[in-house]
Amino acid sequence: MAVTLSPRPALDDRAVAALRALLGDRFSTAAAVREQHGREETWHPTMPPDAVAFPHSTEEVAAVMRICAAHEVPVVPYGTGTSLEGGIAALRGGVTVDLSQMNRVTRVSAEDLDCTVEAGVTRKQLNEHLRDTGLFFPIDPGADASLGGMAATRASGTNAVRYGTMRDNVLGLTVVLADGRIIRTGGRARKSSAGYDLTRLFVGSEGTLGLITEVTLKLYGIPEAISSAVCAFPTVADAVNTVIATIQLGIPVARIELLDEVQIGASNAYSKLDLEVAPTLFFEFHGTEAGVAEQAETAKALAQENGGGDFRWATKPEDRNRLWEARHKAYYAGIALRPGCRGMPTDVCVPISRLADCLVETKADIEASGLVAPIVGHVGDGNFHTCMILNPDDHEEIARAEAFHDRLVMRALAMGGTCTGEHGVGYGKIRFLEQEHGDGVAVMQTLKRALDPAGLLNPGKVLPGN
Amino acid sequence: MAVTLSPRPALDDRAVAALRALLGDRFSTAAAVREQHGREETWHPTMPPDAVAFPHSTEEVAAVMRICAAHEVPVVPYGTGTSLEGGIAALRGGVTVDLSQMNRVTRVSAEDLDCTVEAGVTRKQLNEHLRDTGLFFPIDPGADASLGGMAATRASGTNAVRYGTMRDNVLGLTVVLADGRIIRTGGRARKSSAGYDLTRLFVGSEGTLGLITEVTLKLYGIPEAISSAVCAFPTVADAVNTVIATIQLGIPVARIELLDEVQIGASNAYSKLDLEVAPTLFFEFHGTEAGVAEQAETAKALAQENGGGDFRWATKPEDRNRLWEARHKAYYAGIALRPGCRGMPTDVCVPISRLADCLVETKADIEASGLVAPIVGHVGDGNFHTCMILNPDDHEEIARAEAFHDRLVMRALAMGGTCTGEHGVGYGKIRFLEQEHGDGVAVMQTLKRALDPAGLLNPGKVLPGN
Repeated sequence: MAVTLSPRPALDDRAVAALRALLGDRFSTAAAVREQHGREETWHPTMPPDAVAFPHSTEEVAAVMRICAAHEVPVVPYGTGTSLEGGIAALRGGVTVDLSQMNRVTRVSAEDLDCTVEAGVTRKQLNEHLRDTGLFFPIDPGADASLGGMAATRASGTNAVRYGTMRDNVLGLTVVLADGRIIRTGGRARKSSAGYDLTRLFVGSEGTLGLITEVTLKLYGIPEAISSAVCAFPTVADAVNTVIATIQLGIPVARIELLDEVQIGASNAYSKLDLEVAPTLFFEFHGTEAGVAEQAETAKALAQENGGGDFRWATKPEDRNRLWEARHKAYYAGIALRPGCRGMPTDVCVPISRLADCLVETKADIEASGLVAPIVGHVGDGNFHTCMILNPDDHEEIARAEAFHDRLVMRALAMGGTCTGEHGVGYGKIRFLEQEHGDGVAVMQTLKRALDPAGLLNPGKVLPGN
Repeated sequence: MAVTLSPRPALDDRAVAALRALLGDRFSTAAAVREQHGREETWHPTMPPDAVAFPHSTEEVAAVMRICAAHEVPVVPYGTGTSLEGGIAALRGGVTVDLSQMNRVTRVSAEDLDCTVEAGVTRKQLNEHLRDTGLFFPIDPGADASLGGMAATRASGTNAVRYGTMRDNVLGLTVVLADGRIIRTGGRARKSSAGYDLTRLFVGSEGTLGLITEVTLKLYGIPEAISSAVCAFPTVADAVNTVIATIQLGIPVARIELLDEVQIGASNAYSKLDLEVAPTLFFEFHGTEAGVAEQAETAKALAQENGGGDFRWATKPEDRNRLWEARHKAYYAGIALRPGCRGMPTDVCVPISRLADCLVETKADIEASGLVAPIVGHVGDGNFHTCMILNPDDHEEIARAEAFHDRLVMRALAMGGTCTGEHGVGYGKIRFLEQEHGDGVAVMQTLKRALDPAGLLNPGKVLPGN
């Protein structure tokens, strides 16, 4: 997709000198480092910054920000580079702040079921750290993303249906503002009515309102029993109707994932599985032994009422991991369908009552458009993804894919949904924001101007005109 | 507590004429109407507005706001008048917008487990409306508050431990801004990463950023089984340790409420109960028959490990209602301890690991201060309330109560907690906000100025200098 760039001045020499004095060799203008920080795994073109800073503390991030503010240098935050909508692209150059070396788990409270981490700690690193505590952090967007980045994009993933998204699981943040001030939002109390909810304002703001340097998170006890099952259905609608019934009955399912027959075929080949090639639900149940058994029985009965086949169980950790590993590798499995091609992933989310309609219409559209585009979905939330597998040299195919993508988003919005359930806006979805939020976008722009009047924080992202 | 008021100009005649032309007899300057809209049930002095408007639609609210903006008239939103921290006081006069006649449930979707209501619909009215659907809205702050008011103060109550607070249960809002523009925030998708979280910004802003006119809410299926129990403990610490263990084990308890021995004595007398006069937990379990039985067994075992007595069960709806009715009338039961006196209620919330310390120190402080102040708590969240029962003519006693109140809040803040878990800031807690949020308060003030540059929306509330 075409990106219009403002004129990009060279990085101010005084800013370079000040940043080098501050960080020494943790400040780099090397081409390879810049390239790496401007590159996404997906479709968006590489947009390298002019330099990359590797701070070790909130205070260093604040010092970087003050230098950049003084010289009007754009600042782009970077965690693991796993964003999908161009969030890390340095559209107007400037300095990328790579937070990956801020990777300390600074506090775990088993009694309060919470912890505080630096922004660069990844979700797998946190769960490794928690291994002996009996606790875990559930949010799992697939990639081993940084927790700061997950907060910044309001990430979620497979088990949001049970545990919520980053919106629900962040108790507080440390944020560096556009002028270098440091604030702490929220707190460790489980609830508060004391003032505006700054935590939720920064969660999902994708680095455009401030740089998140620390995150306080809710934790959960590892369930006594975990059980996973796979069930194939005659049609996508049958699978979705099972999901709707499961949610309506209030079954506290931990994961309920749809993979369409195209994705099952791709995953069978890529992850060496032998699943029936049909629309399929992956379930996971968390609870006590008795609770899990009861949940599973009810879900099985609902599946069978909707034409589902047998439940294939995976109760041993290694079998479960193999299943979810395959689910997480859906993107790579899709790309392997067409060697040499690249993926253009997208996600939308609709009210669950419209999910079957949205999926059926979307699959028909994919077929009519002559695209290869497997579908996977966090369907308990009404959220699904498709990834168009495209030949980067075939401009006609790319145009067809972009037209399909626009129709997909417009279909979701017409059904009362959102243009992105969890990937974020980046610059890839800015053009849909006014359609979705109307005058709310003007309010967002007012907030942006109030907190970042010079427009230095991740410019070109989230909002039109930013 | 002393309130400093800015000079208060008389209501502009042109504004009165325009509002009367718009609303006819739904605009009133009668003294009795004004008095009623400036009066709280609790401690704060009556602060009537200059006039009261009773709009019937979002468009009428917007028209009222445009007239008030044109003539720089302050606007105070009003639902049921059950706020506890002076939220409805017309500190600078102006027009109170009473939303109680906007009381339509405009949409219920059983499939999506959500609904949209006008701001004046109360929680009991909504649940009455839902009676035949098998659904309910759980948030229960005690008072039969309006859902717009509950959103505005980020209310919660007894079952937030299971279902969350208004922060978690509002999917979207219709808001009239300070210049009369109407925006719709959020949407009906269960999750979204599309732009800033305006919904959460307005939830808890207490009418200082905009007037909430419609609320889209999550609903839940009425549980198959509900069971309540009461258990007395030797000490408050024993009771709280039971709570901590219950939460840590991940038991999805729907309610877990503490009443100290002073409150039990008061409630026995007021609600004609015969409970043992001791620190007591009220439990409620929601789930399947088997699930509720399992939860209750585990909770009972934990209570007994911590010195708890027998569980007294209430499984019949009438017995349960009697119990929770007594819990909800705790405030009136407290006041009845000292006829002719008034209540000064407050709430704080701390990390649960500090809850026993906070409660024990607070009870000792109450005793040392010579105050009558029963304690009740939504202890699963670390949230507790006390209500000082005071002789309004005894200035020395009031001074002692205010000093105790300040110590209570400072104790909670020192333990990593918040100055209010659910009552809100109003003007009663503004003085604690900087202590709690530091430079975050300056960010809140920046947001306030950006969205309400003339300072017309509920002036004098939430933020210092507002």
